[in-house]
Amino acid sequence: MSAEPSSLPTPTTPTTPSSSAPRYGVWLIGARGSVATTAVAGCAAVAAGLHPPAGMVTETPDFAASGLPPLASLVFGGHDTLDCPLPKRAEHLAEGGVLPHGLPAAVHAELVAADREIRPGGPTPGGTDTGPARTDDDWIDVFAADIRDFTDRHQLAGTVVVNVASTEPVPADGALPPSSLYAAAALRAGCGYVNFTPSTGLHHPALAGLAASAGVPYAGRDGKTGQTLLRSVLGPMFQQRALAVRAWSGTNLLGGGDGAALADPAAAAAKNAGKERVLADTLGAAPEGEVHIDDVPAMGDWKTAWDHIAFDGFLGSRMILQTIWQGCDSALAAPLVLDLARLLLRAGQQGVTGPLGELGFYFKDPVGDGPASLGEQYTELKRFAARLRDDAADSGARR
Amino acid sequence: MSAEPSSLPTPTTPTTPSSSAPRYGVWLIGARGSVATTAVAGCAAVAAGLHPPAGMVTETPDFAASGLPPLASLVFGGHDTLDCPLPKRAEHLAEGGVLPHGLPAAVHAELVAADREIRPGGPTPGGTDTGPARTDDDWIDVFAADIRDFTDRHQLAGTVVVNVASTEPVPADGALPPSSLYAAAALRAGCGYVNFTPSTGLHHPALAGLAASAGVPYAGRDGKTGQTLLRSVLGPMFQQRALAVRAWSGTNLLGGGDGAALADPAAAAAKNAGKERVLADTLGAAPEGEVHIDDVPAMGDWKTAWDHIAFDGFLGSRMILQTIWQGCDSALAAPLVLDLARLLLRAGQQGVTGPLGELGFYFKDPVGDGPASLGEQYTELKRFAARLRDDAADSGARR
Amino acid sequence: MSAEPSSLPTPTTPTTPSSSAPRYGVWLIGARGSVATTAVAGCAAVAAGLHPPAGMVTETPDFAASGLPPLASLVFGGHDTLDCPLPKRAEHLAEGGVLPHGLPAAVHAELVAADREIRPGGPTPGGTDTGPARTDDDWIDVFAADIRDFTDRHQLAGTVVVNVASTEPVPADGALPPSSLYAAAALRAGCGYVNFTPSTGLHHPALAGLAASAGVPYAGRDGKTGQTLLRSVLGPMFQQRALAVRAWSGTNLLGGGDGAALADPAAAAAKNAGKERVLADTLGAAPEGEVHIDDVPAMGDWKTAWDHIAFDGFLGSRMILQTIWQGCDSALAAPLVLDLARLLLRAGQQGVTGPLGELGFYFKDPVGDGPASLGEQYTELKRFAARLRDDAADSGARR
Amino acid sequence: MSAEPSSLPTPTTPTTPSSSAPRYGVWLIGARGSVATTAVAGCAAVAAGLHPPAGMVTETPDFAASGLPPLASLVFGGHDTLDCPLPKRAEHLAEGGVLPHGLPAAVHAELVAADREIRPGGPTPGGTDTGPARTDDDWIDVFAADIRDFTDRHQLAGTVVVNVASTEPVPADGALPPSSLYAAAALRAGCGYVNFTPSTGLHHPALAGLAASAGVPYAGRDGKTGQTLLRSVLGPMFQQRALAVRAWSGTNLLGGGDGAALADPAAAAAKNAGKERVLADTLGAAPEGEVHIDDVPAMGDWKTAWDHIAFDGFLGSRMILQTIWQGCDSALAAPLVLDLARLLLRAGQQGVTGPLGELGFYFKDPVGDGPASLGEQYTELKRFAARLRDDAADSGARR
Repeated sequence: MSAEPSSLPTPTTPTTPSSSAPRYGVWLIGARGSVATTAVAGCAAVAAGLHPPAGMVTETPDFAASGLPPLASLVFGGHDTLDCPLPKRAEHLAEGGVLPHGLPAAVHAELVAADREIRPGGPTPGGTDTGPARTDDDWIDVFAADIRDFTDRHQLAGTVVVNVASTEPVPADGALPPSSLYAAAALRAGCGYVNFTPSTGLHHPALAGLAASAGVPYAGRDGKTGQTLLRSVLGPMFQQRALAVRAWSGTNLLGGGDGAALADPAAAAAKNAGKERVLADTLGAAPEGEVHIDDVPAMGDWKTAWDHIAFDGFLGSRMILQTIWQGCDSALAAPLVLDLARLLLRAGQQGVTGPLGELGFYFKDPVGDGPASLGEQYTELKRFAARLRDDAADSGARR
Repeated sequence: MSAEPSSLPTPTTPTTPSSSAPRYGVWLIGARGSVATTAVAGCAAVAAGLHPPAGMVTETPDFAASGLPPLASLVFGGHDTLDCPLPKRAEHLAEGGVLPHGLPAAVHAELVAADREIRPGGPTPGGTDTGPARTDDDWIDVFAADIRDFTDRHQLAGTVVVNVASTEPVPADGALPPSSLYAAAALRAGCGYVNFTPSTGLHHPALAGLAASAGVPYAGRDGKTGQTLLRSVLGPMFQQRALAVRAWSGTNLLGGGDGAALADPAAAAAKNAGKERVLADTLGAAPEGEVHIDDVPAMGDWKTAWDHIAFDGFLGSRMILQTIWQGCDSALAAPLVLDLARLLLRAGQQGVTGPLGELGFYFKDPVGDGPASLGEQYTELKRFAARLRDDAADSGARR
Repeated sequence: MSAEPSSLPTPTTPTTPSSSAPRYGVWLIGARGSVATTAVAGCAAVAAGLHPPAGMVTETPDFAASGLPPLASLVFGGHDTLDCPLPKRAEHLAEGGVLPHGLPAAVHAELVAADREIRPGGPTPGGTDTGPARTDDDWIDVFAADIRDFTDRHQLAGTVVVNVASTEPVPADGALPPSSLYAAAALRAGCGYVNFTPSTGLHHPALAGLAASAGVPYAGRDGKTGQTLLRSVLGPMFQQRALAVRAWSGTNLLGGGDGAALADPAAAAAKNAGKERVLADTLGAAPEGEVHIDDVPAMGDWKTAWDHIAFDGFLGSRMILQTIWQGCDSALAAPLVLDLARLLLRAGQQGVTGPLGELGFYFKDPVGDGPASLGEQYTELKRFAARLRDDAADSGARR
Repeated sequence: MSAEPSSLPTPTTPTTPSSSAPRYGVWLIGARGSVATTAVAGCAAVAAGLHPPAGMVTETPDFAASGLPPLASLVFGGHDTLDCPLPKRAEHLAEGGVLPHGLPAAVHAELVAADREIRPGGPTPGGTDTGPARTDDDWIDVFAADIRDFTDRHQLAGTVVVNVASTEPVPADGALPPSSLYAAAALRAGCGYVNFTPSTGLHHPALAGLAASAGVPYAGRDGKTGQTLLRSVLGPMFQQRALAVRAWSGTNLLGGGDGAALADPAAAAAKNAGKERVLADTLGAAPEGEVHIDDVPAMGDWKTAWDHIAFDGFLGSRMILQTIWQGCDSALAAPLVLDLARLLLRAGQQGVTGPLGELGFYFKDPVGDGPASLGEQYTELKRFAARLRDDAADSGARR
């Protein structure tokens, strides 16, 4: 399960767009994390032709006419509370088998460029931030200014903010958690917003009005990358075949930063809520069974998810399906992050705003009221791709 | 994984339809096999309210208005080359955990009734049939006469023939294998036909013209009950997420008669062709990997199927999904057989004839050109259910 | 995974020992539980020749000369706080696939006989016992009197007390939990004692002196039936091959009473301590990883245990072993309970007293200082079997 | 499952033995294969302190006093029919995650040195060898001369020949297959011999007399690295617990050269014979079930082995154990090859000759009549380690 070993071809033609072509910003919350680093490095690698775009749905033919920003037109920046430089972070990921060996060197320039555009995040849990005391509104202002400055300096045609930071604990009181401060900053800066994590983000009562009036597209929440992806196709299978699921149990083993973050029961609770929602939505009712998330540092950035599904067939015969998923969350998430950034950027350009329920394909807990089965969500996504085309806009399909 | 232990409730109201209600025939090829016995016993048990209709798609709300024959209106008969009486066969299945203990006794009358309607099959492999030598046409005549006699004596409003016999070897030459003789007999008797097995049945060049002109509905081939059911939802998942499947390998362990039949490499080849077709259809190309079918008598009527799927994610990261399915094929197949019988009987009644591509949901190798993903097949099936309604017929939806 | 379906042969010869042959008592704490019921029913079935002695180590040739009490010589009784009659309990187990159908009827007389010898247990958690208030010493007296009365009335040559009750929470303070009251009663009645559960039993500081001076054999604690049995052979394999285990994670799904009892975190903690001890003992150090025990009522009396072992090979190559164990705890435990009862009864007869470290083969947390690998424990067990022979006793092998 | 990513420390002290210390030869048949390359690179890495000796049993304390040749004293050479230089081969293995990245560079000098000592092998299957036609005896002479020349030029205190070439088909007639020619050459050169493969090697009737009279130690056959290693601990577990194994089925998926070689049914037959022998030896009789070996190029050098074991517990209750082993055969085999080379070199030095049945721990199909359970084999191995000590030799333990 190591990253692909093939030696990297030398790209023969420069893929930098001409100076006149528009460029677009992708502002990552958690910009030094595994997912962000993989997205930045991978975008450069695929744009340069070093790797095929495996895992990127927006590179399949159904999206070719949707006018999405080319990968080479994306400029990366973001917020993070950590200091590790992106090139070094990429080296770590290559050592752990998440990135191919040789890739960090091959895309070093792009990693350095993105690293220069990372600004300090906050507030840190426990309030250990240095500098002057800030109110929530101060934080939002600072973050929004960072995003606007990035957009202006690079003369970007648009910027989207994507939250790929570690999962926050479910907030105990009504206070705005950091993820919501960043989300509010995105709105204040006039940017589309994607919440790829189970954290609160725009799902905070205090932000409901703001989200409604901001005139930007937004999507989320909680990327559907592994165990839940599976559940979103297996749940409908049982339901369509009228097989009665008695119990659905699962255990996730993962290391890396994600494992440690989810060892916090409050963070795990946020994560599990999404997993269970998918089952309840596809099966009609939540079956028996628990989901465990174990921090196993020895697993590094790799994850194993075991699911055990006890179901009843005809005349009560008892049957069992078990699944074992062994994957790398960063490698599963990063192409979806690029997909979402491109879709939101294009939506903003086409004047499509508000909650994008059509993107339920990507999320455990999607905004809006779309279907829960992956197949139907895929149909919706392709319909959305058609809606983003220029001719579709001409013919009045725009909201 | 034993059959449900709950004590059986005593049905309080007789479920026999009144003498004036129409009755329908289900003629099973392989009528003494596990699937047939489970279908006959299960139909009686569900009709009597002894068990919920788990696994029967036609008992879900989407089919309530389709005018399908009630379970209690079905009359069973069939052909078989074996002698074991159905009540005794049902006892064996209860001992093996396929049927609930107590069920054979509870539905003894219905088993005896069906047993009385089983006629000798043939020709047996190796030609050990006693009696006068018969040409193919003689066999077809005898079988068709058996079916017509059954239909007439019971004054049935229609009869459907369903092949649930053991898988035949792929025929080596152009001769009609037994499954095709039975299929031709169905046409000659003016009955709808379902091939639930990978055997040739109507898929024989010599029968093409006959099938086209017979004016009856037919469907098949090869019921999608376990490993392939899974593949028909997992294949689309990988394809929709643009994840590159490198290799898909599988092993099936099964006992019972099916295990022994499939230990014949030619029979296994017929079975595997269907399994691979589903992958090629959903993934766009057949990946590396083999499928093994092992006869393991110790497994009895239970089956374990292990699948190992090696796929590439972003930047070539290598990931693995494994699935382990432990089920009872008879209990998975029987409710689908009842579904199909009801759908074909109703189709015949509504004048829907020819190959029913809309039933791809049920088959590994469906007739016609429908979609390969289970979700889309389910949508087609529900559309078909709507088409069977009386009002749909009124509004011109009939062919 | 249902119980064996084969029809039961009618035993042709009575297996009751002649009136002059000695008889032995097996007094079960938790006498109405699944394990106890399976032990009583199974002892009768094997003694009558209805089933081979699968799972009973003492019926293998190495034990033939050890002078163990014949199965037919065992008389059962015990304590329980529940009321459900044993024949009814056995019917439930047959419905759940733990006992073969037909067995409860075949051994009805033996179940009724054992049921007559079950006395009320106590004190119940929360102190809901009716009757006069009792001190710990009162309880011990009552229990010991029950055991002595049983032994006397049946003129038994010896009685052994075996704890097969549900796992108790780890006691919070120094008070004697019920399992320790029963253990003390065994000593007071002069009987050998086996603790097949993780509960405290004789492992209480207040009982240490008593145990040392009682002059009876005792063994325990916590039967090694499934996941831990596996660990006791896999742990040594990794250690012997110098493969570095990085993390050992596990999840157990189980229903029945055991699942519910272990849903109590304190009870689960007691159980898990034993599981981890086996790993630490065989690997030299406890690896990363957690063990979960989930109550999944849909599983009934069946259990699934998944283990995921991440280990390093040569040059740090990362490898994984996963195991999935699907079994029935009662069917795994019952033959070991019969083994232990026979071994302790014989030990008492031969004057072998005190903690029987040689029985580590059976336990997660054995008394004494024996080896932790199953293979070495098996060697010790066979040595113990040799020591129980009459000739061994003659030649001075007795303690 | 990638190779360990940790950056390699720079060794601070030279580990080259002083010129006066004795040096020993390890002559590898298949010297350019994955196992050989991993053994050469790994020996250098462990000797230099770059990696701990995971997987090397001879580096555990029980072997510290056995006088085994230090890793740094080993000099490598061998035969191969391929041309790929070892440093390049090592790069390929690092790309496939078998060797840590950076290791090929760190041990480049040692790889180059071994590469210089590789001589052309033969005869190639199909007889495509260039040069003069040779009889079997000619081949043996050439090979023996190569080995003697290597030993003389390096002034080695002893040389052992180890077969790690691809598995040969079972020879159809009495002719000597290549593995037997190499084995005969080892004897002719006066060297100890280890057959780590299922190929014929010394197991040829024509070599029996030669082996008996050669006065060298030899061992084999077929290294026990993965699935069979597991079977050698699980088989005894079932046997010791008197649990009746009904069926043991398995499937192996592997790529690399080994997968392709074993896609040849004759080669697979040789491999499977060893696997089944272990079960029959530990269980007392071979259970139902087949073993499949699939060539899956997408797996590269990694292997997945799935085992499904159906067993009966008490009263015929049906239970199942499944195991999934994901490992890298080269990384599992290489440390054992180093172990065996050291043990044979020391045995030769101590005058221990003939078939070394005490090394059954390492083999599926060991020479001699040792125990089949891994635990007992480990005990024998430790006894052998004690026998190799100088003091043991003094006290007459030598043969």
